[in-house]
Amino acid sequence: MGEFDLIERYFKRPATRAALGVGDDCALLRPTPGTQLAISSDMLVENRHFFADVDPATLGHKALAVNLSDLAACGAAPLAFTLALALPRADEAWLAAFSSGLFALADAHGCELIGGDTTQGPLNICITVFGEVPVLNGKSQALLRSGARPGDDVYVSGTLGDARLALDALRGALTLPPALLAQARRRLEQPTPRVALGQALRGVATAALDLSDGLLGDLQHILKASGVGATLDTSVALGLLAARRHADWAPGLIPVEKQLECVLAGGDDYELAFTAPPSARDAVQAAARQSATPVTRIGRIELEPGLRLVDAQGQRLSGQFSSFDHFA
Amino acid sequence: MGEFDLIERYFKRPATRAALGVGDDCALLRPTPGTQLAISSDMLVENRHFFADVDPATLGHKALAVNLSDLAACGAAPLAFTLALALPRADEAWLAAFSSGLFALADAHGCELIGGDTTQGPLNICITVFGEVPVLNGKSQALLRSGARPGDDVYVSGTLGDARLALDALRGALTLPPALLAQARRRLEQPTPRVALGQALRGVATAALDLSDGLLGDLQHILKASGVGATLDTSVALGLLAARRHADWAPGLIPVEKQLECVLAGGDDYELAFTAPPSARDAVQAAARQSATPVTRIGRIELEPGLRLVDAQGQRLSGQFSSFDHFA
Repeated sequence: MGEFDLIERYFKRPATRAALGVGDDCALLRPTPGTQLAISSDMLVENRHFFADVDPATLGHKALAVNLSDLAACGAAPLAFTLALALPRADEAWLAAFSSGLFALADAHGCELIGGDTTQGPLNICITVFGEVPVLNGKSQALLRSGARPGDDVYVSGTLGDARLALDALRGALTLPPALLAQARRRLEQPTPRVALGQALRGVATAALDLSDGLLGDLQHILKASGVGATLDTSVALGLLAARRHADWAPGLIPVEKQLECVLAGGDDYELAFTAPPSARDAVQAAARQSATPVTRIGRIELEPGLRLVDAQGQRLSGQFSSFDHFA
Repeated sequence: MGEFDLIERYFKRPATRAALGVGDDCALLRPTPGTQLAISSDMLVENRHFFADVDPATLGHKALAVNLSDLAACGAAPLAFTLALALPRADEAWLAAFSSGLFALADAHGCELIGGDTTQGPLNICITVFGEVPVLNGKSQALLRSGARPGDDVYVSGTLGDARLALDALRGALTLPPALLAQARRRLEQPTPRVALGQALRGVATAALDLSDGLLGDLQHILKASGVGATLDTSVALGLLAARRHADWAPGLIPVEKQLECVLAGGDDYELAFTAPPSARDAVQAAARQSATPVTRIGRIELEPGLRLVDAQGQRLSGQFSSFDHFA
């Protein structure tokens, strides 16, 4: 199977949202008047972001999901994406499964494949995604990292830490009951980008980002960009580990330090962390209901720089949790 | 050096054309009213698209050049790009050289880096580039592959085949005098995207594409998309091998079959192939002058499907030259 057959068979579909899709030198997008285009790229590398034996359908899902998660963090509505794919060989079963997982998520978000590249090489998936953000009265409605203000509440969506729990179990670093591992593994391999929540938070949240490297590390980007600090309640954060609510959970199954590590510095969560003033608490809950996405208030933005952790009694913790860094 | 230091040190510059550049979850582009956005992605893989010991500055140039070439083929004006980079390790000397080559070409075209990704992995460079094409009276001015009509002339810009000549010499398949190799190697490693010509051909050319896999194979895309055929004059095409005009050239230095192979099926040329009606010959030459880019008429579009080669006397050649296919 040649390069062009491969594209034709697994990736070419008629363009519906773009003016021109796959098949020319460039794709052509018609931007909606009064919008800005939000753009993000993520590259997934074998043995770095996924195991070589991962189910290709879940890999197709995840490759797009991590990009949609960036659009969500900006409050952008998904529009289209490009896919560049380096493959060791043209394996038809692999391509069929990969493209089915990819398009299932793409179709769920009305996000259209408009172009890309295929080449031979070590397995590498690079997706660039495009979304639209309205501009109202000359002001972009995009959610940025730089808008957090002292006194704002800090929220996260969904659950935290289960992806890391699964990764540790798959690496043999801890043992989980099978049902619990299966649940955690779904979080690792098929994250849910919080696209509807991101859009619902436009005009409500003051700052937002998506959690890919771990809560503490990622939250630092908001603090740095906004010139503020924060205090987080770790007892609330611990409750966000979905595994703890599972029927197969037994207290003591996982040391509490490991639970904290997963929740605070786990990575691969693809939840949104965002800030909003206390006056917007009802609006935040309305956005959560409207998008059918739970959100939890886990802390507060403060004038004093730095990130502080407290327990249920408000006592400072001193634990060090570093976030994931690809070159550290 | 961590991931964020690496981005900060080598790739982050203030946004001038984008509403928001490197550093948030998404970049934000403000499309110019009355334009379409042209988008293209290319992925370069070590040992596939470049040798491991290539000068990183020329690699930075080429990685962007092959993407700008796609914009040129669409008649788009460059605007911005994203860069996703998988690196075996954070090598500062390599990064400094790579980013200098990349930004030199980017700056020459006013094309701004607005985001991307860095990760550890086998060396892989994925660039997605954005350009603008005007829409006049509701009609896109983009140059597509599908507009060639019987009777149109077929043109190519610049020179053809020298990149392949250099590749063959570097692989040891043929021997070139040092000055000739150096000249050919510049074509392989530092191609010139024909951005100004592409824009000058808007409203003049009926179809266009950029030559990356070889003239014959790439031209088939125009023929297929336009539902036409073509005849090319190989004696004219042979004259496009720049090496033949070099002072170090000796007739017989390279077998004529190898010359033909380089010119017709060499690949890595990054010249434009385009079609225009005979009535537009003056306009084509004006576009060439305006963009300071030589163009040569090498054939004609015909109703009869297929691609035919003739010699200076108009006699049909029967040689088979297949184009480059990444999975063939």
